[in-house]
Amino acid sequence: MQNLTVGEFNLVYNAFSFTFAVMFAATVFLFLGRSQVAAPYRTAVTISGIVTMIAAYHYFRIFESWQGSYSVANDTIKASGTRFNDAYRYVDWLLTVPLLLVELILVMRLPAGESAKKATRLGILAALMIILGYPGENASDSGTRMLFWVLSMIPFVLIVLDLSGGLKKSLDAQAESVRGLISSARWLTILSWSFYPIVYLVPVLGLQGGTTRVAVQIGYAIADIVAKAGLGLLIYSIAVRKSEIEVTPPNLSAAAVG
Amino acid sequence: MQNLTVGEFNLVYNAFSFTFAVMFAATVFLFLGRSQVAAPYRTAVTISGIVTMIAAYHYFRIFESWQGSYSVANDTIKASGTRFNDAYRYVDWLLTVPLLLVELILVMRLPAGESAKKATRLGILAALMIILGYPGENASDSGTRMLFWVLSMIPFVLIVLDLSGGLKKSLDAQAESVRGLISSARWLTILSWSFYPIVYLVPVLGLQGGTTRVAVQIGYAIADIVAKAGLGLLIYSIAVRKSEIEVTPPNLSAAAVG
Repeated sequence: MQNLTVGEFNLVYNAFSFTFAVMFAATVFLFLGRSQVAAPYRTAVTISGIVTMIAAYHYFRIFESWQGSYSVANDTIKASGTRFNDAYRYVDWLLTVPLLLVELILVMRLPAGESAKKATRLGILAALMIILGYPGENASDSGTRMLFWVLSMIPFVLIVLDLSGGLKKSLDAQAESVRGLISSARWLTILSWSFYPIVYLVPVLGLQGGTTRVAVQIGYAIADIVAKAGLGLLIYSIAVRKSEIEVTPPNLSAAAVG
Repeated sequence: MQNLTVGEFNLVYNAFSFTFAVMFAATVFLFLGRSQVAAPYRTAVTISGIVTMIAAYHYFRIFESWQGSYSVANDTIKASGTRFNDAYRYVDWLLTVPLLLVELILVMRLPAGESAKKATRLGILAALMIILGYPGENASDSGTRMLFWVLSMIPFVLIVLDLSGGLKKSLDAQAESVRGLISSARWLTILSWSFYPIVYLVPVLGLQGGTTRVAVQIGYAIADIVAKAGLGLLIYSIAVRKSEIEVTPPNLSAAAVG
């Protein structure tokens, strides 16, 4: 356990509390917003809310684990002897990352068979990426960390290629007014995901002990906020826009009947 | 950590519990009330509820932190050695203050492009205002506190000018029967927000240690109740009034078709 200053400890502590609040707020917003989108997009919004809900749960645990791993009294800090549980992040990602891909696929509303095939393929790759990352996250030597980074990057690159190439084709089939938003969602996913392997490498870059620890924890928190709450809100906007285009308002259809 | 009397400690303790209860109650009222307003105003009411929900979460944490920072037994009080975490307020404001501005803009229902532009501009200014305030809140000397007060007042004044000038124009475009309510919401925001920089300056005014601490904590709690729960209820009233004006009741339109 590296040495931290009280200021560094508090910074991470407050960042975790902030992230919990963001994820929780996003969850409530998405669950309440569900009823404002047309039926075909409701599942995408539901899953977006479930992703932020799972993340809120894990950030609650991460916050508690962080608090328990140090004891601070009279402005001095010492390790409590209980290790901070890094595994919460990986357990969270194992659940949420495949779901994030499903959100993205659902909101595009591809032909039924294609959606399921794409979701399965990308979901398996995502799970593989996370499982291969974990052994390196806990390794104490840089060599092992680098090895698992490389292994984990293989499925990562395949996912990015699929998102930027494969989904591009289906993008052209979307209505023009939502194409921009869907393209933003695709790019938000690719860019925010690229942040994770960078944060993963921070300990290898030779920063000082405490600073590394702070950089990794806050880096992952920012990436999680963008990739989960940020994407969720974009998915919601796409669903609202697509609902407006595709669904005839009830009063108009009544008038047409009249 | 300044010395407090048991009475002062209890006063703040009960004020925090009260504020938590108010925020929690407002949240439930707004979430349940959502279904009673027309679709275009539902998001404004949802966000009002999310703001009070985030505040409720933080007041829960603030309450716990206050309780943990002193130990009271047999009518004597001493500092426990764990510092009261002031950062919860700033983390809360960073999230809720931009959302409060979004509420206000959404309920006015400006043209789509204008809303987004105004929300982005005011949201960035609000975040800047809070980030610039934090270093001074924790400073032990009056000079540093004053410096960050001045820096933080720059975005504050820009926001107030925008609210009192820029939004005034759009106000004239609103239906006459809601103009008064929207104007109240604008003024409630300006006046309740003006309370924060005053509370911020209390420690510079030369009050005694314990009294300062009590004045700052209770001052912020009152400002938060007015600016969040108070504004939320006003937004709800505006949404109800606007729904009545703009939406033809379903039974009337049915009669017209018949």
